[in-house]
Amino acid sequence: MKVTRRETFNAAHRLHNPSLSDTENTEIFGLCNNPNYHGHNYVLEVWVEGEINPITGYVIDLKILSDIIKKEVSDPFDHRNLNLDCVEFENLNPTAENIAVVIWNKLRAKLDSEFGLEIRLWETERNAVFYDGN
Amino acid sequence: MKVTRRETFNAAHRLHNPSLSDTENTEIFGLCNNPNYHGHNYVLEVWVEGEINPITGYVIDLKILSDIIKKEVSDPFDHRNLNLDCVEFENLNPTAENIAVVIWNKLRAKLDSEFGLEIRLWETERNAVFYDGN
Amino acid sequence: MKVTRRETFNAAHRLHNPSLSDTENTEIFGLCNNPNYHGHNYVLEVWVEGEINPITGYVIDLKILSDIIKKEVSDPFDHRNLNLDCVEFENLNPTAENIAVVIWNKLRAKLDSEFGLEIRLWETERNAVFYDGN
Amino acid sequence: MKVTRRETFNAAHRLHNPSLSDTENTEIFGLCNNPNYHGHNYVLEVWVEGEINPITGYVIDLKILSDIIKKEVSDPFDHRNLNLDCVEFENLNPTAENIAVVIWNKLRAKLDSEFGLEIRLWETERNAVFYDGN
Amino acid sequence: MKVTRRETFNAAHRLHNPSLSDTENTEIFGLCNNPNYHGHNYVLEVWVEGEINPITGYVIDLKILSDIIKKEVSDPFDHRNLNLDCVEFENLNPTAENIAVVIWNKLRAKLDSEFGLEIRLWETERNAVFYDGN
Amino acid sequence: MKVTRRETFNAAHRLHNPSLSDTENTEIFGLCNNPNYHGHNYVLEVWVEGEINPITGYVIDLKILSDIIKKEVSDPFDHRNLNLDCVEFENLNPTAENIAVVIWNKLRAKLDSEFGLEIRLWETERNAVFYDGN
Repeated sequence: MKVTRRETFNAAHRLHNPSLSDTENTEIFGLCNNPNYHGHNYVLEVWVEGEINPITGYVIDLKILSDIIKKEVSDPFDHRNLNLDCVEFENLNPTAENIAVVIWNKLRAKLDSEFGLEIRLWETERNAVFYDGN
Repeated sequence: MKVTRRETFNAAHRLHNPSLSDTENTEIFGLCNNPNYHGHNYVLEVWVEGEINPITGYVIDLKILSDIIKKEVSDPFDHRNLNLDCVEFENLNPTAENIAVVIWNKLRAKLDSEFGLEIRLWETERNAVFYDGN
Repeated sequence: MKVTRRETFNAAHRLHNPSLSDTENTEIFGLCNNPNYHGHNYVLEVWVEGEINPITGYVIDLKILSDIIKKEVSDPFDHRNLNLDCVEFENLNPTAENIAVVIWNKLRAKLDSEFGLEIRLWETERNAVFYDGN
Repeated sequence: MKVTRRETFNAAHRLHNPSLSDTENTEIFGLCNNPNYHGHNYVLEVWVEGEINPITGYVIDLKILSDIIKKEVSDPFDHRNLNLDCVEFENLNPTAENIAVVIWNKLRAKLDSEFGLEIRLWETERNAVFYDGN
Repeated sequence: MKVTRRETFNAAHRLHNPSLSDTENTEIFGLCNNPNYHGHNYVLEVWVEGEINPITGYVIDLKILSDIIKKEVSDPFDHRNLNLDCVEFENLNPTAENIAVVIWNKLRAKLDSEFGLEIRLWETERNAVFYDGN
Repeated sequence: MKVTRRETFNAAHRLHNPSLSDTENTEIFGLCNNPNYHGHNYVLEVWVEGEINPITGYVIDLKILSDIIKKEVSDPFDHRNLNLDCVEFENLNPTAENIAVVIWNKLRAKLDSEFGLEIRLWETERNAVFYDGN
């Protein structure tokens, strides 16, 4: 049994690898390399796997899950510039893949080890990533 | 190969565990414990796994699957009060998790054993559960 | 220029006119007349018309609009039984049309008269109403 | 008769009025005032009103409309920082309202005067603006 | 006050004007002129304007509206080839605009004259038309 | 880690098995057997599984994936009649299941063997299939 909570956050970012030349960065990342940043409405689905608690009928109280997401993801990332404002991406290119790994690690640390964890992160209505820690 | 049929039903419910005190019920279930009920537009995705039938090109005729869902889920649950009108929840707290288990069991009993079965049930546009019998 | 804020609330209701007989109520309202109620995830779009304020670049701060909707609509209606818990529907059949009129009147009273007001209320993904006070 | 084309663009922006103090900017714009910018997936609906051309059966060829939107809106705004990269917002706070006016003016200049023009611009799945030139 | 019912139908069609040459048809309609047809999932929103009936609380019973749409639109158009199977398009190019006019006329004839009528027809998730009889 | 790209194509098709009688075809496929075809807006999600490339932060550049989908799926299938225009379905009934297998095989041949591949294909907003090669 898995349950999910869907949350959103809006952030600026720029794809850039400082160990590559400017030409290489432009070649690989195209418009996403714009030095002045661009941005997205990120849509995050957090799926938690576990047994149904016979007292509550819940796998996990989604209000509690929502609060964890708020504290770990929305508060630090919403209305921020991922490259400039978020220490997690100081040395990490904020591709959707890397953002998903960062979010998964932050949530994993706050969830009981009994729970499984998967996330889906939509960067646009056409592009998304899925990560379950493997 | 999996195929899905998406259906909806609209129902009232209330989260409540009669073995807990009123205070505990309020503490755990908050607004969802409202004694006069609230309600949702439930969105159900039923995924059936199997081989493609070489005669039809179908895993299962989705019209047949839709009819099964109608008979087992929509007819008994749509425009009902899950707590009061549905015998399945007479002694079972109608959380999304428990509703999913009930639906899965009802559909499993009507599908050939050759088929796999998974369901996704969205209670709101932010909350959902997934269940595959495990 | 119009701006909108989209909010949701989840409520139970029953369509019933006490001045009609039970047979007439069943005939007119069908399953919606279920005495034990059913429910919906209501989706509300509140459109406010006005001039752009040259200082802020806003017609109205959508955070302020959201707070008004929260206080006037979400807090009193979310996770409620419209028939039993909401004084507005004590003597008013909670059809989508009547809910829209009630919401429009409540919001109209809290908005400056300089603003125009329109609402769209979706009861299901197939049924909706529009009301602008006329 | 009106026809629409829906397009998207992803941009960074910051809400800021240089004639206000930093304190006032923070007070009015909150997180949207973040000096390092944030961003959105903007969804644009362009509605063109006119008569059906009896030869083509079209009000306007939506491929042509799409090309105009691409040249006037998507190419200059997509994957940009509206404040830093777009001359239109050099002295204009890029609120959704002001972005809508800018887009409407740019498209109006490229459409035959026989056509009416309305736009809807969604900044998030909860916030939008409508503008028809009045 | 306006109320809406949303319905869908899936049809094949081809854009072609027999009074034009093949070259002109290709030039104007491009891929939509494919002689073997292509197809769409059409999404139809029918908006009916009127007063709230004080007995029912309805502008119009949406079940009745749904039945009218089924009989006038879904039954004749769903799973059809608009050009070959539907007499309405024998001499009319089935652009979204012309389909909307045909649907509006068919529904107008079945609705009491007291009601206003508007339709929105989405041909794809990017293209739509609006028609209110003018 | 999996990444996805969502694309759409609009096509006509007819479900028909030439080795069955007309009566059997009608019985099995119903309206989908209409000899003049009907059509759909197909929505395709292509999920690619792999490791994050430490240089780019990508599993696969979604622009490259989009180009592969365009060449292998959208260009040959969009605005076509699957039965008449697409050699892949000359002897294969174009059910959603079979279309998914065809698309998976075409994409599999163009992707490095290091990548996993899954697709989801929505034929309507209610019907979909999932295929991962097994």
